[in-house]
Amino acid sequence: MSARAALPPRAHDPALHELLVKTIKGLTMDAVQKANSGHPGMPMGTADMASTLWSGFLVHDPAQPRWPDRDRFVLSAGHGSMLLYSLLHLHGYDLPMEQLQQFRQLGSRTPGHPEVDHTPGVEVTTGPLGSGFAAGVGLALGERLLAARYNRPGHEIVDHLTYGIVSDGDLMEGIASEAASLAGHLGLGKLVYLYDANRITIDGSTDVSFTEDVAARFTAYGWHVAEVDGHDPEAIAAALEVARAELSAPSLIVCRTTIGQGAPTKAGKSSSHGSPLGAAEVEGAKRAMGWPLEPTFYVPDELRAGLEARRGALTELRQDWDRRFAAYEAEHPELAAQLRAAWADELPEVAMAALDALRFEAGTAVATRKVGAKVLAALVEPLPSLVGGSADLAGSNGVDIPALGWQSREQPGGRGIHFGVREHGMAGVCNGLALHGGLRPFDATFLIFSDFMRGALRLSALMRLPVVHVLSHDSIFLGEDGPTHQPIEQCMSLRLVPHLHVVRPADANETVGAWIHALQRKRGDGPTAILVSRQDLPVLEHGRRDVSRGAYVLWEPAKVAVADLHAIVIATGSEVSLALEAAHRLHEVGLPLRVVSMPCWEAFEAQDQAYRDEVLPPSITRRISVEAGVTVGWGRWASHHVGIDDFGASAPAEVLAEHFGLTPEALIERIRALP
Amino acid sequence: MSARAALPPRAHDPALHELLVKTIKGLTMDAVQKANSGHPGMPMGTADMASTLWSGFLVHDPAQPRWPDRDRFVLSAGHGSMLLYSLLHLHGYDLPMEQLQQFRQLGSRTPGHPEVDHTPGVEVTTGPLGSGFAAGVGLALGERLLAARYNRPGHEIVDHLTYGIVSDGDLMEGIASEAASLAGHLGLGKLVYLYDANRITIDGSTDVSFTEDVAARFTAYGWHVAEVDGHDPEAIAAALEVARAELSAPSLIVCRTTIGQGAPTKAGKSSSHGSPLGAAEVEGAKRAMGWPLEPTFYVPDELRAGLEARRGALTELRQDWDRRFAAYEAEHPELAAQLRAAWADELPEVAMAALDALRFEAGTAVATRKVGAKVLAALVEPLPSLVGGSADLAGSNGVDIPALGWQSREQPGGRGIHFGVREHGMAGVCNGLALHGGLRPFDATFLIFSDFMRGALRLSALMRLPVVHVLSHDSIFLGEDGPTHQPIEQCMSLRLVPHLHVVRPADANETVGAWIHALQRKRGDGPTAILVSRQDLPVLEHGRRDVSRGAYVLWEPAKVAVADLHAIVIATGSEVSLALEAAHRLHEVGLPLRVVSMPCWEAFEAQDQAYRDEVLPPSITRRISVEAGVTVGWGRWASHHVGIDDFGASAPAEVLAEHFGLTPEALIERIRALP
Repeated sequence: MSARAALPPRAHDPALHELLVKTIKGLTMDAVQKANSGHPGMPMGTADMASTLWSGFLVHDPAQPRWPDRDRFVLSAGHGSMLLYSLLHLHGYDLPMEQLQQFRQLGSRTPGHPEVDHTPGVEVTTGPLGSGFAAGVGLALGERLLAARYNRPGHEIVDHLTYGIVSDGDLMEGIASEAASLAGHLGLGKLVYLYDANRITIDGSTDVSFTEDVAARFTAYGWHVAEVDGHDPEAIAAALEVARAELSAPSLIVCRTTIGQGAPTKAGKSSSHGSPLGAAEVEGAKRAMGWPLEPTFYVPDELRAGLEARRGALTELRQDWDRRFAAYEAEHPELAAQLRAAWADELPEVAMAALDALRFEAGTAVATRKVGAKVLAALVEPLPSLVGGSADLAGSNGVDIPALGWQSREQPGGRGIHFGVREHGMAGVCNGLALHGGLRPFDATFLIFSDFMRGALRLSALMRLPVVHVLSHDSIFLGEDGPTHQPIEQCMSLRLVPHLHVVRPADANETVGAWIHALQRKRGDGPTAILVSRQDLPVLEHGRRDVSRGAYVLWEPAKVAVADLHAIVIATGSEVSLALEAAHRLHEVGLPLRVVSMPCWEAFEAQDQAYRDEVLPPSITRRISVEAGVTVGWGRWASHHVGIDDFGASAPAEVLAEHFGLTPEALIERIRALP
Repeated sequence: MSARAALPPRAHDPALHELLVKTIKGLTMDAVQKANSGHPGMPMGTADMASTLWSGFLVHDPAQPRWPDRDRFVLSAGHGSMLLYSLLHLHGYDLPMEQLQQFRQLGSRTPGHPEVDHTPGVEVTTGPLGSGFAAGVGLALGERLLAARYNRPGHEIVDHLTYGIVSDGDLMEGIASEAASLAGHLGLGKLVYLYDANRITIDGSTDVSFTEDVAARFTAYGWHVAEVDGHDPEAIAAALEVARAELSAPSLIVCRTTIGQGAPTKAGKSSSHGSPLGAAEVEGAKRAMGWPLEPTFYVPDELRAGLEARRGALTELRQDWDRRFAAYEAEHPELAAQLRAAWADELPEVAMAALDALRFEAGTAVATRKVGAKVLAALVEPLPSLVGGSADLAGSNGVDIPALGWQSREQPGGRGIHFGVREHGMAGVCNGLALHGGLRPFDATFLIFSDFMRGALRLSALMRLPVVHVLSHDSIFLGEDGPTHQPIEQCMSLRLVPHLHVVRPADANETVGAWIHALQRKRGDGPTAILVSRQDLPVLEHGRRDVSRGAYVLWEPAKVAVADLHAIVIATGSEVSLALEAAHRLHEVGLPLRVVSMPCWEAFEAQDQAYRDEVLPPSITRRISVEAGVTVGWGRWASHHVGIDDFGASAPAEVLAEHFGLTPEALIERIRALP
């Protein structure tokens, strides 16, 4: 029993449908032509599909684009952005005609590919193929999870669908395969994708590279699959009816379409895909569909009127939800308050208190990945929005938290997710969970396999989503698994991603701090990668819990003036205790060093100059960085570097420490030899 | 009609099979126990499958592990390395017992995961799941391609199979999905994978994350699929017979197995996967299979004798091939010479001459991606080993070379490959093509999507394969497609990968040089990424073709002493002409600058100190780097940096240049303000 029984009025009006389709085509051709750049083929080929969906199925309120219970629409084939911009404009989102006319111009709300939190009504930043597909799976999973946790009898306050349009290109990408397999496994019944099967890619016909039986593949994943003529609105609508009623499996509606439909010579050809059609082709297309050549960006009044008439019904649905949520709030005030806090990405005080209680005493030793497990266990109750899991390394990554409940068909409210060996899909799904709202997702794998999820991880940074990426086994010190598993360049490489905070904590207390830092970041800030060790690390005597300033003076000999320091040693993660030991020993022989722990470059960079100069006084230019990874990049902070600029090796950790010169003895030698 | 009609004698001897299986299990348990680290479950569960394959099907010669026409065996589930090491040892490869006893120790030939060119008989470095699967597709494609090109009637000198063992984890990975779809599309009939369907992953039963119908999925890809009891050697052999006879489709033989088979309490459980079984469990397993507890690493004499007896037949097959190749060489000396040169990764003189003829005159302008197309076109004839393509961006990347012939079922000798929108699979397949020998593969996509192929790209570097990665649209100057498509951190991030050379040429001539540099690297050196522009770049007056020294002085005012230089401007790619214009203008107003073009950091780092000091005199510390990407890392060469440390934006290129301060005016201002 779904509130979705209430739907906006269907476009029984074929004339209105036709007008909408033609207008989308016209706007698309004109915008691409004016920008002299863009992708006309996809919007023209999918105008029928999209119009059918938006006219009769999609529940949304253009006046309140962030209404929590709206249906989500994902344009996975993001290059078809003019389709989405046309729909948003025509349906009354805050995207006026001037914006369409500024398609692909600096500062406009109509960039080349759709960008969430930039254009009202855009749910996901798409463009890299397959990524939107995975994000949609996350959106649908988020809905199911919140519905299971928050709905109460008579109060279905979370109850919406996730729709999307996906392309041949999307379905060739591995990330989509991974997410599709997971969605089928979980049985995400409220996920409905229209597949724009135009059989054209940039290189030409899909015959040249993509001849698999997509329908059979998705059936094998456990999806409900239908196939229709993608230019027959009644057939599409009928398939959508069936799909949205199928609650035990996600749906793929294969829509056979013609790319660039309506273009006189380029329809059905890859030449309509990624370039302006050209004035003659546009003219031909407009003439053929009985459209005025002038003005460009033409929108018939009767279309505006027709769509306006329907908007009332959508507003009523949203208002009805407002009333229903008020009733829910009256009856379940605590749940409602929880949800509101979660929607706002708030870190509840009880959660902070739970983390505050996690303290580790110097003199003990613990692997920082295991600290992560303690952090998560402490958050299960006080942070109800917490959700996530690992790509089949839950125990190893320190994210095996049975108390979260394992997400499954039988336990749709489970907040622990077995993602399977699907790193890229995992990160893409987590983006969707974060985009949904009301959830604080984390994913986890070995640091080395951040390489596998880099596409989606970058999108989490570009969308500024507060996803937490837990990356364990953060150096060669994982030992015997060898060079295929030993990160060398990964830590530095993640630091290069804008808006991603990379935290490599030195010990247990810094690890708790890393989580606090990560959870205090909100939507609009960005994701955090927490790099944790496989091996035990000593709990540092003066180690801090607060990593929010990025770096701090961990130790230096008492009563030594800054001017008398021989050098500063800057280290991260497991190398901090190494640096400390070297510094202690050198202190014994009269060589005073300052040891700086620098768990988070990005946070340190955000400090004012005074603090940065306090930690790294400009007068001390003899500085040595110590990190078990590439040294390129460390020139930002240090003049000399200890690191590893080649691949690792398979051996026990202590043997590797000797081999790669990461022992106190070797470090002491380097420091003594500093020019 | 396949030479594979000649096969080694099948293990009709069930007793010998049983001995081999038990010995593999014993060696595995003992090695993992001794190393106190490793993965016993997989080798124990797949010993039946592997023994059947190796005893009756695999054509190889342990005395000549690089015999070009050997069958390839890929252990995609590389964590089961003791399976492979046991097989190699027992079959007589140069992997003595002392090496097995040094499993996972520094410098041994038995590292945690198999490493090609480190251990004789290991064909692919595996471990990151899915990667071996994709490499195997490349190996099979390489065989087909070379067979089509070089075999002549009566001379089937290229005719072998590619076998592999793949796991649940492999088949969950997106890269495997991509490669599987491509292999099915191409109909690679000589690819035969045994799928170790043990239904166990690290997180537990596959029920928690992986319930799709794998057989149906592979059928949908166009594979031949069979299903057998993975502990029934006769059933496995029968399925292998059918699979190797099926020449129009790749084969997946689903083998239902028990992980850790033989372990008394851990068999069938994830606890047997990734840790030593423990002394008691090992003892129980040995007792149950009637195996001596001592000595450890026990190999029965009758097994050695039995396998030795079979080796003669294998040697004969290889000797027969030697004779057949000699006959081929006599009849087709030119083809044979071509093949020999290709096996040696030689760059023929005619190829160098063809590249030498490609010269571009200053005063013109050309997009460096288009230069790549000219380079490839020039190499079609003189470099017959050249093979490659794009992930559906052939035209955009400058690799649309019809003269290569498009690879397909109908044209199995085609050297141009439509990889489809499958970046990760593409890079994995190219690794396999390079591993096969006799081929010089290149792949291509937008630089931004190097993120999608990073896992396989790293493996090309770890394996030191001379794959050429063509990465176009190398900066924000691709323009309107916006931040999802604009690389920012990618160039620097690739520089961090050991043994990967990253070349970002400044103009057309440097682009030719980049290709020469890439093609002069051989197996054992490593891959090259060539980063090329979407936009036209002026051909530089003093631009060099030789980039092999990594950096050079492009321009400085005549008759200015080094000591009088105001600063050095170091730039790469499209920013070199920008730097040059700024320098010219500043020269006019009396500020002398040296402009250094630095297309390849890694090559420059390999120069002697004298050359490096000549280009970048240590006395000139005022140096400014100019590159349209992140500035982190440039501290290695410069004191000040012009770059982009945030995501890009959607707008025409010239607008972006203004917006991001990458104009001559902005650069002049920065240089004037240098402290």
